[in-house]
Amino acid sequence: MAEHGDGGHGAHSRLFGLNVSDAGLLLTNHHCVTACISALSTAQENFLENGFFTRAREEERRCPGMSVQVLTGIEDVTSRIEAATASAGAEGFVRARDAEISAIERACAAGVRCEVVTLYQGGRYALYRYNRYDDVRLVFAPESSVAAFGGDPDNFNFPRYCLDFALLRVYVDGVPAETPAHLSMRFTPPEAGEITFVAGNPGGTSRLRASAQLAFERDVVLPWQLTNLAETRGRVIAYARQGVDQARIASTTLESVENTYKALWGRRMALADPQGFARVTAAEADLQARVARNAAAQRAAGDPWGEIAAAQEAYRDIFYAYQHLEARAGERSMLFAYARDIVRAAAERERGDAERMPRYTNARLQGVQSFLLAPRVIEPAFEQIHLELWLSKTREMLTVDHPLVRRMLGRESPEGLAARLAQSRLADPAFRRALWEGGAPAVAASTDPMIVFVRSWDEQARALRTQYQAQVESPIARAQERIARARFQAFGAGIYPDATFSPRLSFGRVEGWREGAQDIPAFTYTSGLYERAGGQAPFALPQSWIDAQVRIDPGAVFNLSSSHDVVGGNSGSPLLDREGRVVGVVFDGNIHSLGGEYFYDVALNRTVSLSSAAMRMALADVYGLEALVAELEGR
Amino acid sequence: MAEHGDGGHGAHSRLFGLNVSDAGLLLTNHHCVTACISALSTAQENFLENGFFTRAREEERRCPGMSVQVLTGIEDVTSRIEAATASAGAEGFVRARDAEISAIERACAAGVRCEVVTLYQGGRYALYRYNRYDDVRLVFAPESSVAAFGGDPDNFNFPRYCLDFALLRVYVDGVPAETPAHLSMRFTPPEAGEITFVAGNPGGTSRLRASAQLAFERDVVLPWQLTNLAETRGRVIAYARQGVDQARIASTTLESVENTYKALWGRRMALADPQGFARVTAAEADLQARVARNAAAQRAAGDPWGEIAAAQEAYRDIFYAYQHLEARAGERSMLFAYARDIVRAAAERERGDAERMPRYTNARLQGVQSFLLAPRVIEPAFEQIHLELWLSKTREMLTVDHPLVRRMLGRESPEGLAARLAQSRLADPAFRRALWEGGAPAVAASTDPMIVFVRSWDEQARALRTQYQAQVESPIARAQERIARARFQAFGAGIYPDATFSPRLSFGRVEGWREGAQDIPAFTYTSGLYERAGGQAPFALPQSWIDAQVRIDPGAVFNLSSSHDVVGGNSGSPLLDREGRVVGVVFDGNIHSLGGEYFYDVALNRTVSLSSAAMRMALADVYGLEALVAELEGR
Repeated sequence: MAEHGDGGHGAHSRLFGLNVSDAGLLLTNHHCVTACISALSTAQENFLENGFFTRAREEERRCPGMSVQVLTGIEDVTSRIEAATASAGAEGFVRARDAEISAIERACAAGVRCEVVTLYQGGRYALYRYNRYDDVRLVFAPESSVAAFGGDPDNFNFPRYCLDFALLRVYVDGVPAETPAHLSMRFTPPEAGEITFVAGNPGGTSRLRASAQLAFERDVVLPWQLTNLAETRGRVIAYARQGVDQARIASTTLESVENTYKALWGRRMALADPQGFARVTAAEADLQARVARNAAAQRAAGDPWGEIAAAQEAYRDIFYAYQHLEARAGERSMLFAYARDIVRAAAERERGDAERMPRYTNARLQGVQSFLLAPRVIEPAFEQIHLELWLSKTREMLTVDHPLVRRMLGRESPEGLAARLAQSRLADPAFRRALWEGGAPAVAASTDPMIVFVRSWDEQARALRTQYQAQVESPIARAQERIARARFQAFGAGIYPDATFSPRLSFGRVEGWREGAQDIPAFTYTSGLYERAGGQAPFALPQSWIDAQVRIDPGAVFNLSSSHDVVGGNSGSPLLDREGRVVGVVFDGNIHSLGGEYFYDVALNRTVSLSSAAMRMALADVYGLEALVAELEGR
Repeated sequence: MAEHGDGGHGAHSRLFGLNVSDAGLLLTNHHCVTACISALSTAQENFLENGFFTRAREEERRCPGMSVQVLTGIEDVTSRIEAATASAGAEGFVRARDAEISAIERACAAGVRCEVVTLYQGGRYALYRYNRYDDVRLVFAPESSVAAFGGDPDNFNFPRYCLDFALLRVYVDGVPAETPAHLSMRFTPPEAGEITFVAGNPGGTSRLRASAQLAFERDVVLPWQLTNLAETRGRVIAYARQGVDQARIASTTLESVENTYKALWGRRMALADPQGFARVTAAEADLQARVARNAAAQRAAGDPWGEIAAAQEAYRDIFYAYQHLEARAGERSMLFAYARDIVRAAAERERGDAERMPRYTNARLQGVQSFLLAPRVIEPAFEQIHLELWLSKTREMLTVDHPLVRRMLGRESPEGLAARLAQSRLADPAFRRALWEGGAPAVAASTDPMIVFVRSWDEQARALRTQYQAQVESPIARAQERIARARFQAFGAGIYPDATFSPRLSFGRVEGWREGAQDIPAFTYTSGLYERAGGQAPFALPQSWIDAQVRIDPGAVFNLSSSHDVVGGNSGSPLLDREGRVVGVVFDGNIHSLGGEYFYDVALNRTVSLSSAAMRMALADVYGLEALVAELEGR
């Protein structure tokens, strides 16, 4: 599956869909709606394992907590941000910028979702407005074993054989939305070499960052992330082996850890490749030379690259402390995340809105409350694993003699402390609500082990954040803005901004690539799926596909590779032909696409899609869902 | 603990000791003799946990399988190796060199252990002769909890509080060896700034390698090793948590994995530090400039750096396949190691001695046999973890579509195959003996799952080794020899050769270092041990030390830091004063010493020792072993 980022704790409910019928039908990836499928499943009906099939609209089921957003407008707000930050020095830049963004977002109309998107590393700021549908229902999902066929071993690889699609329907006032302006499907597969388009929301990329930032990423950040993820993976796999319940509890974490691990591995490979990094430094040197040729531009720019390099050096001194104690404190522990939000919100709500940490401003406090009060199953043994890992890695990286490690652990071991913290009553939503509503006095009086723990060193953790913002984040953001301006002067908007999860259109063609001495063809076929299938997961096919083998077309195009410059976040994007018809749905990239974080190599970066032909074959010939086929065909 | 290297499968029985009395008493580290202590322990008597104390020689117990070697002579054999390899091309260099080394070692007298040591990356070859004592008995060992106080969190850190010493005695014909030429002890601690010496056997270093090799190490080898070790650590920790038996089975593996992980992490940090790597490239550029100034030297050297860089590029293409399928195939699985030795030795014994892989030449076959036939407890569940990890990482790195991955796995999953292979009868020494003695026909007829598995792709694995030797190892070795010659011409023997586990003498002084803005003092004291001690491992003290607190000197020097250039393998080396008296025993280095693999930084690299004062205090005041104190005092 393509990357969704490393999770975080917020409810992941944002889906950018596209209509493929006039009755609100949406086509997306199976892996984008697993949260819905899982939420609809029970001990009796496991729709992830067995698939979800409807033959009539009454059978469609609403996805709990899921909404779909449709973009309605984009407005340039760069001048407002620039005015607000003009007088802020290096240390105060981020605070001034965030306050203005918050003010712009707050001023939006009710019922409309507004978001300020940073483009070109701060060279442009744009306000995006979205309409939002809150009633989204599941219409079709195949079995996970065929949707995610090949699992982690095949993730980011090609040749590939994933039936990674699902169908949803948006409802308005209890009836299917009318969507006459929908896209239409084309079931004949594209030709090799055919020009195609991808419309979607690529996630963040780092292509316009300074080489000093990417060197730090390569040498410090990625190796630290990868070894943390590898040890987490080892522990989580071992936990999952303990039984059916443990396997179920661990499954989404394990998928996320493995997916992130593989994505970051690919990025590290791209940056550690001498030719890869040379692209970064060559582009930077080119821009610096252009700036140097223009005295006015040189004066305006100053030495932003030197400022960034100095900030990175400052970051080197606090990186592990900042990450372990602040930015990623608690790692995957939900109990820790709850406690920190409760402790911090209680303190921040006592301050004026403009003085608060961005997460706790009035505009965002509602989101924090939803996160805290939503019911969620917390498994203490699984919490304990994450807490123990985080505490032991923190002690390892900062050493026993670090004052904050001493304060956190006292005379306890990471194992002992984790076991004690995992018993926190914060697993109970009612307990969280009482603390949330009780505010600062309730937090101060609490004897819950996790609240006591978080409270006891929160001040020092905040001090690390303040230091990071002043010495690292702000100087870099301010320098980047000047680099962005210099880049506009040199190139205009001829180069596109870094991806930021906002909508883009990308063009390319259907083609494979050359891997060493070997040509990788652009298409895979149904026959290959059956050749690859073995008896054991993740290469075991569901019974429906085993039964269907005799009657379906072995020569049907299944998955395909194309040269679009897409990155993680593009999942669910349609692959369109020149006439705007849907010939496939993007669900992944090849291993080289991971370097797309830093640069696009037309010879190697490839997008991986499921063909519309395979979707039709599945619906018609495997599952016998004729009504859906008719709807997709516009009959 | 200082690093012993990443294990491998050979019986680790080589100990370089030093006599500290006239009756064969040997001083070494506790962590160097844990194998002996563990072997002498039973369910009733756990000497690792409770310590091993003797008050009379009759109580001393023989360490099974342990021998001690005393160096008796060194002979330069460089000209013999040069003559043998003169006409070998780039591809055949290693084979010619290894054949000559094997011939020299074979020609040694019976009862004497001979070893050809490569110095200066092939600039010099020396034959080392050792006398060997096979009857070595354990005399004293403290409890592990105080010997390895601080465990992995404190490993490679300082301030430090480890009582990491043990006493052995060598016996000849059943009575203590007479060793009148022993070292004597000095129990008053050294002063800060005092000049001291370390005599010992530092393990391998890489300081004379080309920058292209070290860049490959930094960018490819170390990140791959570290992520493998991190995942292994996660799985092994989870296994160890399952119960007391599992914790015991996993303990030495876990220690080795954590120690290696931390050591490699330190190395990666040193190479990833821009200033660190600049040392490497500056030294190389300096040598290249000196060579360029001398036309004859330039002609003789050719372009060895370019040849090495080209060989590293070739290595990049086969690195993961070579490592996963050949060099580290099977990883920590003993069953795999047995099977591969049995399968390969059976094939190799059919060939002439000069045609064989070095491990299976007649001179070394006895060692392979000892390894195979020695009894050893194999735990199938633990084997399964290592096999599964290796198989799944192999599939991950090489992809499902690699022909050898297809052949190895067939339609099985790594989990399923690992479970099946872990049931191999090779866990039984008698079964191994039958196959060993049965040779090629027995191997060909075997239906044991592990033998069948190894046999089925051994030819392809060997082909990878051949390719590696021809395209990587041989060209690099040959180029390094020319670099070594150029270095001799430029500097003489004024720079010392890379460490190779052969004896060295290092001088330095007792001193701490400056860490950022902080001065780290050279000494720790008994009082600090008690301040650091908490209730939970690895900071829990044994009862003996809790009881002794009231009567022992809180101001006694416990551990100390000194500026000797030592690396892993120096464990157990004496720290000597100017008069040759033992003031301590080396057991570790600080975190910066790990960069010692590549360069020595006099400002930061530090050796960590246990003081003789603390040893005496432990023996006299904690354990009340007066006879041993008297013997060490020469009374």
